Amino acid sequence: MLKLDCRHLKNFIASHEYSTIKSQIERAHKFLHSEESFCDNIGWVELPRNYDVLEFNKIIEVAKKIQKDSDILVVVGIGGSYIGARAAIEFLKSDLYNNLPKNTPDIYFVGNSASASSLSDVLELCKDKRISLNVISKSGTTTEPAIAFSVFKEFMEKRYGKKDACSRIYCTTDIEDGDLKSIANENGYETFAIPRNVGGRFSVLTAVGLLPIAVSGANISELMRGASIAHDNLLDEDLEKNHCYKYAAIRNILYRKSKQIEVMAFFEPRFSFLGKWIEQLFGESEGKDHKGIFPTSMIFSTDLHSMGQFIQDGSKNIFETMLFIDHVGKDITVNDNDQIKSLDFLKGKTMSWINKKVFESTAIAHSDGFVPTLILHAKDAFETTLGYIFYFLEKACAISSLVMGVNPFDQPGVESYKKNMFALLGKAGYESRKEILIKKLNKC
Amino acid sequence: MLKLDCRHLKNFIASHEYSTIKSQIERAHKFLHSEESFCDNIGWVELPRNYDVLEFNKIIEVAKKIQKDSDILVVVGIGGSYIGARAAIEFLKSDLYNNLPKNTPDIYFVGNSASASSLSDVLELCKDKRISLNVISKSGTTTEPAIAFSVFKEFMEKRYGKKDACSRIYCTTDIEDGDLKSIANENGYETFAIPRNVGGRFSVLTAVGLLPIAVSGANISELMRGASIAHDNLLDEDLEKNHCYKYAAIRNILYRKSKQIEVMAFFEPRFSFLGKWIEQLFGESEGKDHKGIFPTSMIFSTDLHSMGQFIQDGSKNIFETMLFIDHVGKDITVNDNDQIKSLDFLKGKTMSWINKKVFESTAIAHSDGFVPTLILHAKDAFETTLGYIFYFLEKACAISSLVMGVNPFDQPGVESYKKNMFALLGKAGYESRKEILIKKLNKC
Repeated sequence: MLKLDCRHLKNFIASHEYSTIKSQIERAHKFLHSEESFCDNIGWVELPRNYDVLEFNKIIEVAKKIQKDSDILVVVGIGGSYIGARAAIEFLKSDLYNNLPKNTPDIYFVGNSASASSLSDVLELCKDKRISLNVISKSGTTTEPAIAFSVFKEFMEKRYGKKDACSRIYCTTDIEDGDLKSIANENGYETFAIPRNVGGRFSVLTAVGLLPIAVSGANISELMRGASIAHDNLLDEDLEKNHCYKYAAIRNILYRKSKQIEVMAFFEPRFSFLGKWIEQLFGESEGKDHKGIFPTSMIFSTDLHSMGQFIQDGSKNIFETMLFIDHVGKDITVNDNDQIKSLDFLKGKTMSWINKKVFESTAIAHSDGFVPTLILHAKDAFETTLGYIFYFLEKACAISSLVMGVNPFDQPGVESYKKNMFALLGKAGYESRKEILIKKLNKC
Repeated sequence: MLKLDCRHLKNFIASHEYSTIKSQIERAHKFLHSEESFCDNIGWVELPRNYDVLEFNKIIEVAKKIQKDSDILVVVGIGGSYIGARAAIEFLKSDLYNNLPKNTPDIYFVGNSASASSLSDVLELCKDKRISLNVISKSGTTTEPAIAFSVFKEFMEKRYGKKDACSRIYCTTDIEDGDLKSIANENGYETFAIPRNVGGRFSVLTAVGLLPIAVSGANISELMRGASIAHDNLLDEDLEKNHCYKYAAIRNILYRKSKQIEVMAFFEPRFSFLGKWIEQLFGESEGKDHKGIFPTSMIFSTDLHSMGQFIQDGSKNIFETMLFIDHVGKDITVNDNDQIKSLDFLKGKTMSWINKKVFESTAIAHSDGFVPTLILHAKDAFETTLGYIFYFLEKACAISSLVMGVNPFDQPGVESYKKNMFALLGKAGYESRKEILIKKLNKC
């Protein structure tokens, strides 16, 4: 369902390089599938074959209710509680999902920044609309989503009255602990559980991602089925048979020869948030101990007309992974009777054919420009394929990070700005840090 | 209007480093302002004080007509003919501009990829709406916008009849040459001129950017005034007086000590397309001769919860430029009577104050994590400020590229994929290249 194509790598990686990294991949594999793994957060590995079916069915039921009684679903969440759902909805439906006519609710994501302007915009959109709210937070204490939750809770209680608002607020949080769970219990909100052994950036196939995705009308059973097929397909330790492991190997081989940036390139605007999901997945898993490949994503040919020059002719510290999918949405044929001369040679051709030529042309141009170019290739952009892609990339990321020698499942660095923020915001317990920070700020 | 704040740079750059790069900056300045400059494309330097007023007034008139007779303006363009206008509209209005209720037309951008799915979506949105079309292309031969133009031309001629469609199609192109100019003449479309001495990525303050921006209701006179103030303010060769030149100097100092990636960070989602504009501006100007700082952009705190870990603890090849603006749109105050305990210490505080603390916290956290952090600081997000920002960054980019030793105003690398594409698409004259490419594609 997702194939790795290495035809453009010949000039960059010799075959013996695969032999020498093989044993490191095998060790990472054993580690990931061993029951005595040191990591707490590897619940995602068996998730597609081992999820809570009752909870899953409740997600489908609640999604149907929201589709019936709401014009807009507002989703409160940040990081892993935000990006996966949005990536899936745009990938499966459209990046213009909210603008297009449809039978399902609009879906807006808030609480992922401290911008008042952004939150005000969504409040304005919600005027005179029927609203439901999905608050997603493991602890319920993260500042940005807590503010957005507070604002929308007040908005809905004013609109619907306290009691009716309760029946429109859904909390996705820890199964029993935390501030959000307490508030949900107090008010009688419906809740969904975030499994404790699944970290934020690996949580798209839990209630975190699945509820908003289901509200968009996407088939979440097929999504899980795709992930489950990936689980079974990607167990072989042999690099030549396991494209996921081969991708993880190539990333490390290239990193060790100073390729420090990975450009993940797509050929459809609707895949741009999948790019954001990949940036978090790889960046947060691998970027630690002063190591890591800097992940970034682009849409071609759009960004060929902005960053194309740099990739082609600029600093040679980049490698590129192109995800190309043959069939995506509707096709369009170039008009036979047009007066635009520069299109003469394209009359009667389909845009999907032209887009494929853009992809092939770019892969050759960039590898000729000394940018190692990998291709991930899929046939369609339906739910099963996306489930497969999610799982494939999660596993590639875990194996790649383990080979690089970092723990893929923690994120100690995210705390640094949070601690500073609590201090500067005046939270109790952070007084001495505040004093130090104020001094630093005043050093001009 | 835009101040550079270097308080967090002390540990990364010693004062003598500014002295040693000073003469290079001065030489770049003289080059840019000399009349015998080797570059063809420096019309943007004097543009804010020297633009065609008749053309400018025509833009305002046509924008008013479009506001009256259209529900949607469809803008066809790619690269520099796309990003600047979208960046300005989102910056000044909202990234949800098209979704929010307003008195001005929706504005959709097409022809910036070869995606049929994307073009189909916008066609669907246009059903039963009153449409105008602005086609932006210097030559009129670029494939992606040519296809979108053809599709929308047919759509509008079917809807309005050939004659009435003509009065709704506006072409921004060369003053007399090229395919698009010929078609415009043939059909009697209104045209706007792209000055020959202004390159695509420097063209936001020409008709290329100004027409769509004016249609959104933004005040383009103030935009030009801001750029004009920047022009006058940024002429001093003294680094300590000219923040634009100091920024260009710092970029080169950091690049020479192996900082290969610049993260441009904003604190408002509506600035994300300004980030894309900056990526093109710097990436396409500087990324050549196997040199260049890789430019990328992020929105905080959103991306602190995805790429924050990497910046804090990952590979140390990054420096960061934060653009912080004090007042942006509406403000929101944290509810006094809320039951959310984790917000207790924030009751009665405004989000804009909290967002400023996020900014300060992050600047300290990242510079403590060995990431040199620069700050660009402005007071508001109105037109005058944006005009100033555009010009400041254009000039910083030009000076920075000249100091790096590349020509900031060409983009030879963009041609590579285009030539391959023409060959694979079967265009006449590319037969021998096609043969070579087919062989490369079949090498597995």
